[in-house]
Amino acid sequence: MDYACLRQVYSRPAAQWPAPHVDPGVAWRELAPLSAPPAQDKRQVDLGKRLFFDPLLSRSGQIACASCHEPDLAFADGRRVSFGHDRQAGTRNAPSAAMAGHFANLFWDGRAGSLEQQALMPIVDAAEMAFAIDPLLERLRAHPDYPRAFADTFGNVPIDAAQVGKALAAYQRSLTPRRGALDRFLLGDGKALSDTQLHGLHLFRGKARCLNCHQGEALSDDSFHNLGLTYYGRRYEDLGRYRVTGRAEDVGAFRTPSLRQVARTGPWMHNGLFGDLRGILNMYNAGMFHPLPTARQKDDPLFPKTSPLLRPLQLDAQELQALLDFLQAL
Amino acid sequence: MDYACLRQVYSRPAAQWPAPHVDPGVAWRELAPLSAPPAQDKRQVDLGKRLFFDPLLSRSGQIACASCHEPDLAFADGRRVSFGHDRQAGTRNAPSAAMAGHFANLFWDGRAGSLEQQALMPIVDAAEMAFAIDPLLERLRAHPDYPRAFADTFGNVPIDAAQVGKALAAYQRSLTPRRGALDRFLLGDGKALSDTQLHGLHLFRGKARCLNCHQGEALSDDSFHNLGLTYYGRRYEDLGRYRVTGRAEDVGAFRTPSLRQVARTGPWMHNGLFGDLRGILNMYNAGMFHPLPTARQKDDPLFPKTSPLLRPLQLDAQELQALLDFLQAL
Repeated sequence: MDYACLRQVYSRPAAQWPAPHVDPGVAWRELAPLSAPPAQDKRQVDLGKRLFFDPLLSRSGQIACASCHEPDLAFADGRRVSFGHDRQAGTRNAPSAAMAGHFANLFWDGRAGSLEQQALMPIVDAAEMAFAIDPLLERLRAHPDYPRAFADTFGNVPIDAAQVGKALAAYQRSLTPRRGALDRFLLGDGKALSDTQLHGLHLFRGKARCLNCHQGEALSDDSFHNLGLTYYGRRYEDLGRYRVTGRAEDVGAFRTPSLRQVARTGPWMHNGLFGDLRGILNMYNAGMFHPLPTARQKDDPLFPKTSPLLRPLQLDAQELQALLDFLQAL
Repeated sequence: MDYACLRQVYSRPAAQWPAPHVDPGVAWRELAPLSAPPAQDKRQVDLGKRLFFDPLLSRSGQIACASCHEPDLAFADGRRVSFGHDRQAGTRNAPSAAMAGHFANLFWDGRAGSLEQQALMPIVDAAEMAFAIDPLLERLRAHPDYPRAFADTFGNVPIDAAQVGKALAAYQRSLTPRRGALDRFLLGDGKALSDTQLHGLHLFRGKARCLNCHQGEALSDDSFHNLGLTYYGRRYEDLGRYRVTGRAEDVGAFRTPSLRQVARTGPWMHNGLFGDLRGILNMYNAGMFHPLPTARQKDDPLFPKTSPLLRPLQLDAQELQALLDFLQAL
């Protein structure tokens, strides 16, 4: 790899970079530095932050939003799956809340279409905070401080569910991960990426085909893909987006996660079953999994189909290392 | 650095390695591979494991030992400080429980002298599980399964506190981190450490003076040292071992933590205030902190004294990188 030449190519504006390896029909956006969070009502943000860290939002009074979305853990929880009320184990890995404001589709399966709507759903989920909206509102209305804080923020009384959702959404929109080495590079600091990281960037956009899904500022297309990890008919089966849409083509599809701070948000994938980023790159390099139906399954319309975007990549060991180094820069 | 020569030197048995840089009077033990856990009653281990993950041990029924000592997070919790009952923030970073069986002094300040004693203390700590022994025993005795499990394990009835402590201790003694690259190297796989990691090993024992405290199989001397992080008279003040012994020389001393899996147990130090291993190496390289008393403090017998083991190391950038690489091998 001629790093000097590569550095010259990538020192030009992004519009003049080599064309990425993106499949026909894929709407893609170039990588971009993190922008500042949108201007917001500071009172809403402050109230939302208080609520986010307050275990009063759970039935037991012990579980806060932050219990599974912890700032010290890049707003995830570092566990394979999260634990909710009575320490029930969930089925999915807690996604980082730090980039939540960048998505229109919330949750791994996109079952919420706005952060305002999303924010209330873990509160009432029986396996998560296991509470209900009415007793939560009663608790907030009877609290020594919250009634005033809500009134100061929203004007109208009494506290209602929409206000709780709005405040939590405002706080999450205010979150922005610290700018990483990639951001500094994209903003003009040519030295922010090492030689191997720059090589990784080139592969990410090119031969490794990552930009097909991980793109733009959020390093996600905010869309749904089947990586062959449906575990159809087996332990860990998760039908993903299908449970929301009921469409056969959505079986086993999950929303592309942001890769911001990805090195800090393990274990990975919707089920948290993958604890090693190098192993994940090896899986992508092999083309991911394309399970074939058994004789009994061959007429099953729900048999999951792995996305055709995934195919063997022929990356050698040096290229895999470069990609791994690049992931540290996100 | 002549890596070939270094590799030759360290390919000999450890007894023939270069003498470490250890101060006079320091009782030191050579680095050693992780041994198998001691033989134990399997029923005690199984019962202890069940208790370790059961939130029934907390007043709220929501917090288990594993809430702060999570297998997915190397038996720590990844947070600056842990959160207990009603999401109260503690003052210290959760140490990994994975190496607990290797210590005679438990907790950062050594206030428990056995794992059996230690195991009950978070249960009754008002800021942690906030329960009490009698109602815990009542709850266990009234449980559909535990009475039989305890009787099968310990013979005598009814369930008592000593049995709970014994089972939890047995489980923790059964934990052994997966053997890392250092173990494989010490067991004879000369290729287990890279060139820079081998250089790091040499520095760890030598110029960087780490073996003065981080030694033996556990990478800890199980003793107490003041690193200059007492924050005396300031926010984050923590008098450490002094609170247990009442001896002035113990002000601000904390037990040497194991470095096993250290790259996975951040944030670091007793207060969890340090989130970057490279930054910590820089601090050691500068000789750590040696706060001097103000005029008003100069006759204060409790003014903390940083351990004389800590002094500037004169490590250059390449050496710091080698040490950092070595820490990944533990």
